[in-house]
Amino acid sequence: MNAPLHAFFIPRGIAAFGSVKEGKIAHQLVTQLIEGGYQGNLCVVNPKAETPAHFPKIPACDSLDKVSIAVDLALVAVPSQFVVSVIEVCGRKGVAAAVVFTSGYSETGNSEEEGRLAEAARRAGVRIIGPNCAGIMNTAASLYASIEKRALPGHAALITQSGAVGGAVIALAVERDFGFSTFVSCGNRADVDEIDLLPLLAHDANTSVIGMYVESMKNGRKFMDAVYEAARMKPVVILKAGKSTAGKRAASSHTGALAGSDDVFSAMVRQTGAVRALDTEEFLDFLQGFSSLSLRCSRVAVVTNSGGPGILTTDRLEELGLSVPEPSTDCIHRLKTFLPEQCSLTNPIDLTVEGTREGYRKTLKTVLQNDFDAVVAINVATPFVDSVAIAEGIIEGVKASGTEKPVVAVFMAGDMVSAGIDCLRAAGIPVFATGERAAGVLAALHKLEKRQQELGRRDDEICSLKKSQNGSSDADLSKGKPLLEPDMVHFMEAWGLSFPSHYFVSDQVQLEQGVIETGFPLVMKVVSPELLHKSDVGGVVLGIESLEQLETEYQAMKDKFSDRDFRGAMLYAQVSPVMEIIAGINRDRDFGPVVVAGAGGVLTELMHDSSVRIVPLGRKDALDMLSELRIDAVLRGYRGGKPGDRNGVVDVLCTLSEIALHHPEIGEIDLNPLFVCENRVLVGDVRIIL
Amino acid sequence: MNAPLHAFFIPRGIAAFGSVKEGKIAHQLVTQLIEGGYQGNLCVVNPKAETPAHFPKIPACDSLDKVSIAVDLALVAVPSQFVVSVIEVCGRKGVAAAVVFTSGYSETGNSEEEGRLAEAARRAGVRIIGPNCAGIMNTAASLYASIEKRALPGHAALITQSGAVGGAVIALAVERDFGFSTFVSCGNRADVDEIDLLPLLAHDANTSVIGMYVESMKNGRKFMDAVYEAARMKPVVILKAGKSTAGKRAASSHTGALAGSDDVFSAMVRQTGAVRALDTEEFLDFLQGFSSLSLRCSRVAVVTNSGGPGILTTDRLEELGLSVPEPSTDCIHRLKTFLPEQCSLTNPIDLTVEGTREGYRKTLKTVLQNDFDAVVAINVATPFVDSVAIAEGIIEGVKASGTEKPVVAVFMAGDMVSAGIDCLRAAGIPVFATGERAAGVLAALHKLEKRQQELGRRDDEICSLKKSQNGSSDADLSKGKPLLEPDMVHFMEAWGLSFPSHYFVSDQVQLEQGVIETGFPLVMKVVSPELLHKSDVGGVVLGIESLEQLETEYQAMKDKFSDRDFRGAMLYAQVSPVMEIIAGINRDRDFGPVVVAGAGGVLTELMHDSSVRIVPLGRKDALDMLSELRIDAVLRGYRGGKPGDRNGVVDVLCTLSEIALHHPEIGEIDLNPLFVCENRVLVGDVRIIL
Repeated sequence: MNAPLHAFFIPRGIAAFGSVKEGKIAHQLVTQLIEGGYQGNLCVVNPKAETPAHFPKIPACDSLDKVSIAVDLALVAVPSQFVVSVIEVCGRKGVAAAVVFTSGYSETGNSEEEGRLAEAARRAGVRIIGPNCAGIMNTAASLYASIEKRALPGHAALITQSGAVGGAVIALAVERDFGFSTFVSCGNRADVDEIDLLPLLAHDANTSVIGMYVESMKNGRKFMDAVYEAARMKPVVILKAGKSTAGKRAASSHTGALAGSDDVFSAMVRQTGAVRALDTEEFLDFLQGFSSLSLRCSRVAVVTNSGGPGILTTDRLEELGLSVPEPSTDCIHRLKTFLPEQCSLTNPIDLTVEGTREGYRKTLKTVLQNDFDAVVAINVATPFVDSVAIAEGIIEGVKASGTEKPVVAVFMAGDMVSAGIDCLRAAGIPVFATGERAAGVLAALHKLEKRQQELGRRDDEICSLKKSQNGSSDADLSKGKPLLEPDMVHFMEAWGLSFPSHYFVSDQVQLEQGVIETGFPLVMKVVSPELLHKSDVGGVVLGIESLEQLETEYQAMKDKFSDRDFRGAMLYAQVSPVMEIIAGINRDRDFGPVVVAGAGGVLTELMHDSSVRIVPLGRKDALDMLSELRIDAVLRGYRGGKPGDRNGVVDVLCTLSEIALHHPEIGEIDLNPLFVCENRVLVGDVRIIL
Repeated sequence: MNAPLHAFFIPRGIAAFGSVKEGKIAHQLVTQLIEGGYQGNLCVVNPKAETPAHFPKIPACDSLDKVSIAVDLALVAVPSQFVVSVIEVCGRKGVAAAVVFTSGYSETGNSEEEGRLAEAARRAGVRIIGPNCAGIMNTAASLYASIEKRALPGHAALITQSGAVGGAVIALAVERDFGFSTFVSCGNRADVDEIDLLPLLAHDANTSVIGMYVESMKNGRKFMDAVYEAARMKPVVILKAGKSTAGKRAASSHTGALAGSDDVFSAMVRQTGAVRALDTEEFLDFLQGFSSLSLRCSRVAVVTNSGGPGILTTDRLEELGLSVPEPSTDCIHRLKTFLPEQCSLTNPIDLTVEGTREGYRKTLKTVLQNDFDAVVAINVATPFVDSVAIAEGIIEGVKASGTEKPVVAVFMAGDMVSAGIDCLRAAGIPVFATGERAAGVLAALHKLEKRQQELGRRDDEICSLKKSQNGSSDADLSKGKPLLEPDMVHFMEAWGLSFPSHYFVSDQVQLEQGVIETGFPLVMKVVSPELLHKSDVGGVVLGIESLEQLETEYQAMKDKFSDRDFRGAMLYAQVSPVMEIIAGINRDRDFGPVVVAGAGGVLTELMHDSSVRIVPLGRKDALDMLSELRIDAVLRGYRGGKPGDRNGVVDVLCTLSEIALHHPEIGEIDLNPLFVCENRVLVGDVRIIL
């Protein structure tokens, strides 16, 4: 583990500060440490040097100065007005780490006090976890410095912004016999947060999967980078709260920080190669699956002794994008050599209620060695089925196959199958309560693998589209004057984006020259710093077919907007695209600039057909964005229609990413519509908000 | 219970047919009956008159003729070649009911033998459940004639097409201390099926909620009627398998029947007032919630001692359409009189880790008496929290409130809270493992209530739009000649639907008269029995602006299709609707005629923006269909746009329902597009397939 944070997880000695009367936090901590088998030095510090109830042998002092043992870690549960002085004395005595349990800081609005605490810790050279946290655990060191239920030893790490969620996950995991390497309730994160902890856990040999419960981020970009780096080394699973309005209200009062937009958060998870779980149980399912299974997985065999649960599992697997194909003729042939007549050899492979240990063993071996990448092995017991025998058949089949492909088991239910489940767990085969849940884990594994592959390809490839030579556009944007359409068009063209042929006219006499540039039919749009939403006020005229008509319309427009700072009009050639879409830049509170693409118009809003990525984007990211849109089917050439220039759209999205990086002064850009033609992409209209 | 089926569930005596050697089904059944405490007469029948292993006191005979006790129910587990003769002797001896466990019938493709069995039963006057089933239970009579785990006594009834799914649900329920009134594994349903059982359970005073696991239906319409009738009396929850391709493959080989389309099945559930569960655990959650909770529910208070789980619960509640509003000022004022400072009084109401029995009691009482319709009470324990005290606080708060509003509890997790959970269950408060699951149950309750209200309004109102006077259209459709566009237009007009002004021309000289009817611009479409997909072959010309142009285009069309049985052209006035949608009739394998509405064109297919209902439709149903479409926002007047004639669309959908009922010879009707204008709805094109 990394040196500065080492003291938290492998301390030579621990001092617990605060009242050690029964029921008080310091007493709970001592209880947990002793019952958890902590072998290092332990003492308590409180004003009357009281020893903890029931633990008379624990040394007690009235000041850290009087403590004779080597202490690396302080557990601080004193009233908030005394916390800073405890941290200061820790600094003086060389205690490198402190977990602050005391509450009453930013979570109740008292950010000022939290700032003072952070500052004191910095000055004293003490790293702190908390305040307002539920503690930490390092099961390998039998270190249970937490008020939550003690985790079983294992290989999942858990970082949680809510001690209670963490505690509940641990308690559910204990029921499943599933263990953790590390637990950190990071509380208000005045100092140590996920950004510090992720590298530590990513490099921890005892940790094979990292789970995080997140309500908010202090620094979204750094958080994202830390997740990205960790996810390259081991699976990262994230449970995020605060999606709903009411949820956000609570998330924000709960942590003293605003929750970010949920779509952007999902994009972040995707871009970092992590996986998001949608509820508490799925979160634990994923941790459990990812901690022991390898990643390859797409063709799944369902082996069952009962049709119904096999079908429900298959339904869910396919719903989640996995494939449940029939076995090959060859594979069916092999299965027929040992399975009785009544078995169904399509997939699900149904051994029927008469399925035996041998049947499971041979079937598992056969499907793992032949057509399939993963197996869900289901046993639905009756009181008269020997579940231990079936468990052993599954274990033997996996071994006999000689593969490392993921196999998960579903044993239903209750006391009829508990002995069988114990066998499977002892053999390292994850067991889930229902086939639907097992399907969720395999689908997430598959998603994770795909993302890892994509990230591998993406790393070298974050695009760096050359900015075109015309540098004047930057200057234009920084002058602070209102941006007019000709300026915005000029700026985007300088970045290499194309518009339909166009011409800015500020006077009637220029119309003829304009027509030479654009041809007919053309579109005329009013130019005025006062008129940003041109079409809403009748400032756009489509389908102009003659110079005469143009002259009339121009004069009409000039008259209409004479009192609105009329500067002239932009003329554009009218184009007939394969499809109009929308693209742009936005800024997220947590993650900064994002690129958005959508179906355009009514579709984007009513159908929620849009996708978002945090900049910078690689071409692969941009292509993924496009693929996520349902209207991508149209761009691919729908029902024999012409396809659109998807590469051109990818170029535009990457350029938007570049612009967002180079122009922090830009708040939003809307390219709406973006005309996707067969061989090019043209910007139909641009709006830039600084 | 209803007389003919009475014998299954309250038999005076039972005879078990088949080998009673240990491990054999008849032996398992005897074991279950004895261990379950069955008090009626019991005997076994097998060729050697063997008594069952371990149960030497059970009378055994080699023939039913020698049985002296009164037998109403036969449990048949003999090899399939002997089943018919057992049924025949049952008939002779006045045994009214038989549960046939024996397999090897339609589930393995042997439908012929199943037919023989059904016929024998009919002749013998014996009702049978099965074959290939896992038996039945009536817990109130201590009747456990099933190989599945014995259910605890309770008030949920379970009908299942898979014994294993049923057994698994029971085993999961035992873990939750949740019980059943009745269990029926109905197997291949050669005789008794859901249509027989639903009325029985709907009238059973001991049953408060009915759950069904369904793979396929023998008669979709009768099934639907039975669900509808039952759902009027008590909540009905349905778990359906066979959604996926592979799942369907299995469902069909599993039950010897084809699985129906999933969207239509969902429409059926909705139209009957039942609720569909999406997985095994949700199915049990719903049964559990619905068996004890009343229906009113929309504003939910979340009372918790921990922020994180409160937020996750709130997220899910809002995601599922419930409201989690902040308490009123008055309610907050009341809460402040007893809750300490650190509590968050927005919703979730967070009592913090220091939340006490008294805090829960007073808070529950206050929110139930004031602003809210339902409460999720969450306790996330640490090893140092007294969960029993919190459970008691919740129970007391509910009592003190004097309301019957639904309150569900979430106690997390494991052994820390098991004593608290026992208290809550004893008090009749349902407990769920996570807040997300509790949210799912409340949302389903709310959905159920809304559907019940809708059904109440709908009953009198199934619309009976008068067919217009022109009866000749019927004749047109039955003549068997290919339908031409003019015929189809005529037919639809006879049903009262409107088209844009139109005129059929079969000769150049009629064009001028056509123009008088339609005006300009007009649309011309080729008429030919060989050209059904007119626009695909260039048989539609839009935007004709003059008689001269029309004459040219007509001649061109005539030339183009001279060898395709050219009959002339339909001329239509061109219209500018608020929106184009699509509507029509289709036939579902299980449920017969359905009415479909959708966004039209690319939208329907890419965005899956469509809705479906099984005929007959009431106006309320049709309005619901419209509301389900995302593009309904456009019809309601999107962003200041003009609204469309939604009532007109409802008329069209109801008329389609009438047509489907009156014309069984019609397979499909497509109205595509349907022009929705401001004050009327016009059919843009019609296609009828017989």
